[in-house]
Amino acid sequence: MTSALRTPRDDAGLPWSPEELERRLRAVGAAHYHNRHPFNQRMHEGELSRAELQLWVANRYCYQQAIPIKDAAILSNCPEQDVRRAWIQRIIDHDGRAGSEGGLEAWLHLAEAMGVARDVVVSGTRVLPGVRFAVDAYVQFCRTQPWLEAVAASLTELFAPTIVSERLSAILTHYQWIEPAGLEYFRTRLTQAPRDADYALALVLERCVTREWQDRALAALNFKCDVLWSLLDAVERGAVPDDAR
Amino acid sequence: MTSALRTPRDDAGLPWSPEELERRLRAVGAAHYHNRHPFNQRMHEGELSRAELQLWVANRYCYQQAIPIKDAAILSNCPEQDVRRAWIQRIIDHDGRAGSEGGLEAWLHLAEAMGVARDVVVSGTRVLPGVRFAVDAYVQFCRTQPWLEAVAASLTELFAPTIVSERLSAILTHYQWIEPAGLEYFRTRLTQAPRDADYALALVLERCVTREWQDRALAALNFKCDVLWSLLDAVERGAVPDDAR
Repeated sequence: MTSALRTPRDDAGLPWSPEELERRLRAVGAAHYHNRHPFNQRMHEGELSRAELQLWVANRYCYQQAIPIKDAAILSNCPEQDVRRAWIQRIIDHDGRAGSEGGLEAWLHLAEAMGVARDVVVSGTRVLPGVRFAVDAYVQFCRTQPWLEAVAASLTELFAPTIVSERLSAILTHYQWIEPAGLEYFRTRLTQAPRDADYALALVLERCVTREWQDRALAALNFKCDVLWSLLDAVERGAVPDDAR
Repeated sequence: MTSALRTPRDDAGLPWSPEELERRLRAVGAAHYHNRHPFNQRMHEGELSRAELQLWVANRYCYQQAIPIKDAAILSNCPEQDVRRAWIQRIIDHDGRAGSEGGLEAWLHLAEAMGVARDVVVSGTRVLPGVRFAVDAYVQFCRTQPWLEAVAASLTELFAPTIVSERLSAILTHYQWIEPAGLEYFRTRLTQAPRDADYALALVLERCVTREWQDRALAALNFKCDVLWSLLDAVERGAVPDDAR
């Protein structure tokens, strides 16, 4: 990954228009989003073994379980009631409510469909150190940085629909041993992610009107891409048996 | 306030039964809850001036607006999905959702009924330093301490129904210049507070089974009583004109 886009300093620090900021945010995704990671590309091309997919699904749960935690941190750092009223829906979507299970439960169904028992996933015993560090870095970022930067970090969801629909189709095509009923998580995210991303993008474009804040938003999104990329790095290395390294 | 109840060391550090822990938690409230504060007693006896009530309602909003913030901090610190699913209702109750206003809005109606414009309340210009420090201390406590201690701190709600019903009746009796329609906040809390307190108490009694954690729970509740007491101290002093001090 290059850092060419991280601190653009090519126009004397003047603020960009919202359109230019959006273009630059989308360029971060085009360059750094984890759909370009070799492990993800192998997943989508049908080249992963059952063991690799199982390691991935158990490790990715570490990230999933942190989502309501980091969203609550954003809520806790945000003094604006209107923003909190919108943002809280993300926590409900992941944790669920009485009578409707949320995204965490759906991920456990996916893991079961991939042959990993929910107890194993929930216990975290298969979580690799690099995955834990990346996830912890994200949670700490959302706890300690201004809430608007954490909102900008969430903008990886702008790029989620593509990866999610590719993943759905790859699994249905290449990994037919996975029970299709277990794929509900992805189907739900196809509608939730765009709704969430649209709201977050509008907020970032509306609020980040100085160049300093625009740079912060871009840096936050780069950081978040690093988190997701690093997670796949760890799973990719973790999936190689020790004697093959 | 005495500190006699704060670190009971009269039985060699053995854990108490849940019944004994509950008795001790309730004893903290009986000794230290802010219903015993002179300013609160004057309020309930009908002795406060309009200016004193207005200062109180504007300052107490500083505490009210911190409630969803501190509850989101508890959510963010809590790795247990079931607890989060229950606790999130508190945030919704205060922030409201589309189509149903929450406790913050109800407090602004109360302030308006007491003759303080909502803009003045929201701006925070009338908030006294001692009030802000006490509220900030509470938010920091919930951000930095284990979530179960923050849950224990919330147990002042065990004692809320008495103070709230006394306050309702005092306002209706002694301060008839206050529009009764503005009292909805108190009416709503009469049902919400017991529900919240019952859940939190059950959690504390179930989880605090070592003496160390029982001491922590008692200390947290004492701390929270100090927060509420200190808030009234500041309002009481703030309401005295400078030349009368």
